[in-house]
Amino acid sequence: MYPIITISREYGSGGHDIGQKVAERLGIEFYDKNIMQQVVEESGYAQEFVNINSEYTRGVEQWFSGSIFTMNYLTNPQDQIFAIQSKVVLECARKGPCVIVGRCADYILEKAEIDTFNVFIHADVESRKKRILEREQELPEKAEKYLERRDKGRKAYYRYYTDRKWGGYKNYQLNLDSGYLGEDLCVDIIVQSIKRLVKEAE
Amino acid sequence: MYPIITISREYGSGGHDIGQKVAERLGIEFYDKNIMQQVVEESGYAQEFVNINSEYTRGVEQWFSGSIFTMNYLTNPQDQIFAIQSKVVLECARKGPCVIVGRCADYILEKAEIDTFNVFIHADVESRKKRILEREQELPEKAEKYLERRDKGRKAYYRYYTDRKWGGYKNYQLNLDSGYLGEDLCVDIIVQSIKRLVKEAE
Repeated sequence: MYPIITISREYGSGGHDIGQKVAERLGIEFYDKNIMQQVVEESGYAQEFVNINSEYTRGVEQWFSGSIFTMNYLTNPQDQIFAIQSKVVLECARKGPCVIVGRCADYILEKAEIDTFNVFIHADVESRKKRILEREQELPEKAEKYLERRDKGRKAYYRYYTDRKWGGYKNYQLNLDSGYLGEDLCVDIIVQSIKRLVKEAE
Repeated sequence: MYPIITISREYGSGGHDIGQKVAERLGIEFYDKNIMQQVVEESGYAQEFVNINSEYTRGVEQWFSGSIFTMNYLTNPQDQIFAIQSKVVLECARKGPCVIVGRCADYILEKAEIDTFNVFIHADVESRKKRILEREQELPEKAEKYLERRDKGRKAYYRYYTDRKWGGYKNYQLNLDSGYLGEDLCVDIIVQSIKRLVKEAE
């Protein structure tokens, strides 16, 4: 059985699309921000968190206890959103093999003792600008600063919730430079590595 | 034509052996510490550096100028060794496609405007202990501390001479977890990626 694959990525590196293609090639589910949002809306979790002060301690997964998820922190809306997303990440992962993009999924699933195959995608600034141009028609002003700011946000978010280094090699089985390797080769490396590891484990 | 492949690696991660197998598979030269040492001994560079105060400024490559390689620094024996090794790395690279393990080769060759394919190999502590045991028959005392110290040394050395982060994803096309992927899969990922990139460039 394929593992759960988590994809972390620099802004504009194509990590999202690479993850989507990997999921297609392996025939497994794909979860990104939009799909997660949909799950949250359908789940009623958002509503649950409105009543957080009375309900939270009973509602959450056991592993939350003793972590940063205390009443005190959860008065912060960002923490509430993270807690909801964490529940959704766990639910998605428990349904079976899938690709999850972002959401600190590597950390959340490790804490829940669910095995994952973690990939980090990065690229040089020029490749990322080119990719953004394909999608957005026009580059944001001061594009390099913009990229830097977006990554800084992801880095800080990851650090805050996981106490780990975003992009730090120790967290990932593969860090791939999509600017140099190209999107298709990145997809092939991930798919072929996973197929082979699954075959070897059989 | 194959690029020059540089391999950086955590101590005990198998990066050296992976590099050697990649070189064999691609049919290109392989340079590690021992081979470099031999080149240094045969070259007479060591002798040259004995007379460093009178000879250095004429003897070195142009790109050294304006860098840390000033008279002042080169009174430090470690800097002298680094300068000699840098010359040897450049000479090896100029002979044609090859695999170079360690020696800050990625940085040295970038400064000399020679294209490289940079790989970083890492692994979890248990895999590295196992690998060291195969080689050394017995583990050093406090093996984890020992591994940490060895990597700290490599990290500090790399930082000192390159002003870059050792293992930081931005410096490498591939960061591979050899503990999880296994040595053979790491070799295959590198070889197949390079073959494909060369084919696409033709």
